[in-house]
Amino acid sequence: MKIVIASDSFKGSLSALQASAAMEKGIKKVMPDADVMLIPVGDGGEGTMDSLISAVNGKAIEVDVHGPLHTMVKAAYGLLDDGKTGVIEMASASGLDLVLRDERNPMITSTFGTGELIKKALDDGCRRMILAIGGSATNDGGIGMLQALGMKLLDSNGEEVGRGGQALKDIHSIDDSKFDRRIADAEFIIASDVQNPLIGPHGASRVFGPQKGADPQMTELLDQYLTQWADLVQEKTGIKLHDRPGAGAAGGLGGAFQAFFPAVMRRGIDIVIEQTGLKEKLSGADLVLTGEGKIDSQTIFGKTPMGVAQEAQKQGIPVIALAGSVGRGIEELYSHGITSIHSIVDGPMNLNEAMEKGSELLEFSAEQVFRTYLASKTK
Amino acid sequence: MKIVIASDSFKGSLSALQASAAMEKGIKKVMPDADVMLIPVGDGGEGTMDSLISAVNGKAIEVDVHGPLHTMVKAAYGLLDDGKTGVIEMASASGLDLVLRDERNPMITSTFGTGELIKKALDDGCRRMILAIGGSATNDGGIGMLQALGMKLLDSNGEEVGRGGQALKDIHSIDDSKFDRRIADAEFIIASDVQNPLIGPHGASRVFGPQKGADPQMTELLDQYLTQWADLVQEKTGIKLHDRPGAGAAGGLGGAFQAFFPAVMRRGIDIVIEQTGLKEKLSGADLVLTGEGKIDSQTIFGKTPMGVAQEAQKQGIPVIALAGSVGRGIEELYSHGITSIHSIVDGPMNLNEAMEKGSELLEFSAEQVFRTYLASKTK
Repeated sequence: MKIVIASDSFKGSLSALQASAAMEKGIKKVMPDADVMLIPVGDGGEGTMDSLISAVNGKAIEVDVHGPLHTMVKAAYGLLDDGKTGVIEMASASGLDLVLRDERNPMITSTFGTGELIKKALDDGCRRMILAIGGSATNDGGIGMLQALGMKLLDSNGEEVGRGGQALKDIHSIDDSKFDRRIADAEFIIASDVQNPLIGPHGASRVFGPQKGADPQMTELLDQYLTQWADLVQEKTGIKLHDRPGAGAAGGLGGAFQAFFPAVMRRGIDIVIEQTGLKEKLSGADLVLTGEGKIDSQTIFGKTPMGVAQEAQKQGIPVIALAGSVGRGIEELYSHGITSIHSIVDGPMNLNEAMEKGSELLEFSAEQVFRTYLASKTK
Repeated sequence: MKIVIASDSFKGSLSALQASAAMEKGIKKVMPDADVMLIPVGDGGEGTMDSLISAVNGKAIEVDVHGPLHTMVKAAYGLLDDGKTGVIEMASASGLDLVLRDERNPMITSTFGTGELIKKALDDGCRRMILAIGGSATNDGGIGMLQALGMKLLDSNGEEVGRGGQALKDIHSIDDSKFDRRIADAEFIIASDVQNPLIGPHGASRVFGPQKGADPQMTELLDQYLTQWADLVQEKTGIKLHDRPGAGAAGGLGGAFQAFFPAVMRRGIDIVIEQTGLKEKLSGADLVLTGEGKIDSQTIFGKTPMGVAQEAQKQGIPVIALAGSVGRGIEELYSHGITSIHSIVDGPMNLNEAMEKGSELLEFSAEQVFRTYLASKTK
């Protein structure tokens, strides 16, 4: 019997790899000689790099970069085994988790480090980049990233502007003469599920600014600064980022890619599924187990279990999903290939306890679910 | 597809009938035309009467009796549809739940009401009694029950003694000349999983006295009084209750049945399974669902899921168990016919929340479990 385990992480408790390993243990308890294949998958958000690296035997390359607050931080990008594909999580260099809650300030935070990561990957020979741009601390329109790659953003005196969202207001002209030339010859695949435009009521500042530390006044200012920036970009490139879907991803970093890079934006889970070779690996499988910390009515919007299920459904393979917490409104998932959804929690307990015991709970529930699955075979 | 649902209650949340109905709803969501048979079962403890009544279309007969503290309470016994079988839960007349925590005192509490229930059932024509004797508030050796049925328990002056555990010390002789004569012609089936002897370190007083309100000193006194009573019973009947298994059930009520009644003691779940016709009803079933509030390493000792599974195993039918809380050390259940065990809890939550949402959680988990069960059929 062939079983494919393609789980996402259980955030705060288990990485995708740990979760998949726990499920495997549960399966093997029931059927020690089962042919179990592990494909830890992320949905293109945090953990994407790790899961792609583990899926294709790639490696993590550590790089010292400027963090969101301009101090040095240790970041990393993933070099896949083809030697030319780099996987970059912007959160590794410019992520919200790198800034203490009290210090979150999108006027100051910059994507400069993300640009440095890209530069290092280019130096190492990467000409194909997968960029996961979730979890940013920034609202700088991606200017930090551009600055790190040689773009000159000049004020009215012809001087280079500073960094962070507040520097947007000073930009008077864009000089791309020193912009890294290798970029034009490379391929950039942006993993993002965010469809927001750059500005306006659904734009980066108003929708995501507050969670990055912007107060109402700052939110309005940032929206104005980004408008000014979008005008300038349009003047320079002809590309109108203002209401372009995805331009508002990662505080406008998405828009910078759209304007200055040979980039395509794709649903994160689709990239991950393609890169991990999930489709091929599913071939001949009897059963798929997937999982995520929480499965609910949002799961249908490009989360890992959904992506895995859609692929499995094409091959007629049932998919059982395990989650720390199962919300309601999940009926729609059935028609997209999810067979059933089980919580791993084995009795009343609080969130902390469930997270601490995550591995054990997941192993136990995978075991029970597999026993239930097999019941109709033995009868 | 034929599915038998044979669930116990989820204590504090759902009766066996409610639990079974919730599971049925979940099954029908997946397969509206499934042939679902409900057999709510108890394990011979609390809820036995209700589940037997519902299994055979019996009815509850209300009776005013003396409660454990000698005040009047509304109790009930179950008259099954054969018109001659009575189902009596001692807890209905003499149960711990009838006494406020502060008033629990086994020196005072009496089984008199249980005797009154038996008398009423005899009056109504019952000649076959099933007695569930769990949950007692008493440690009176069953003398209250005997007194209610005409047994004269006399002190050294030939006067009748009072009631409760403290009256045991005054008994000097037993006069059975007025003891209800119908008892000898009836059949008494005592449902009890308790194997404790009447006295000594594993006896009624020392093991169960404290939870009924006895302090250490009272516990020792009650053990002495029961010893004196056992001596007297042996003198009168030749039956030695002192170390007899089951004589210590329900504060010695078990012993009173053994000494003065044509009684057999049986594992509660076995009686229930027999009475509900589970064996016959399982015939041809594809799947059995069972459940209980908690399933753990104790479940193997005669709890409902265990009894149901043992019966289903004989017919090769898989049994999926649902529980509010699943403990560890349950592996041994597999070899006794339990296929798998799933918690109904769908994420981190406290016990109160789980109990309040019991019906919804049970329905949802039955649905998911059934979907998982069916997955291997559709592949």
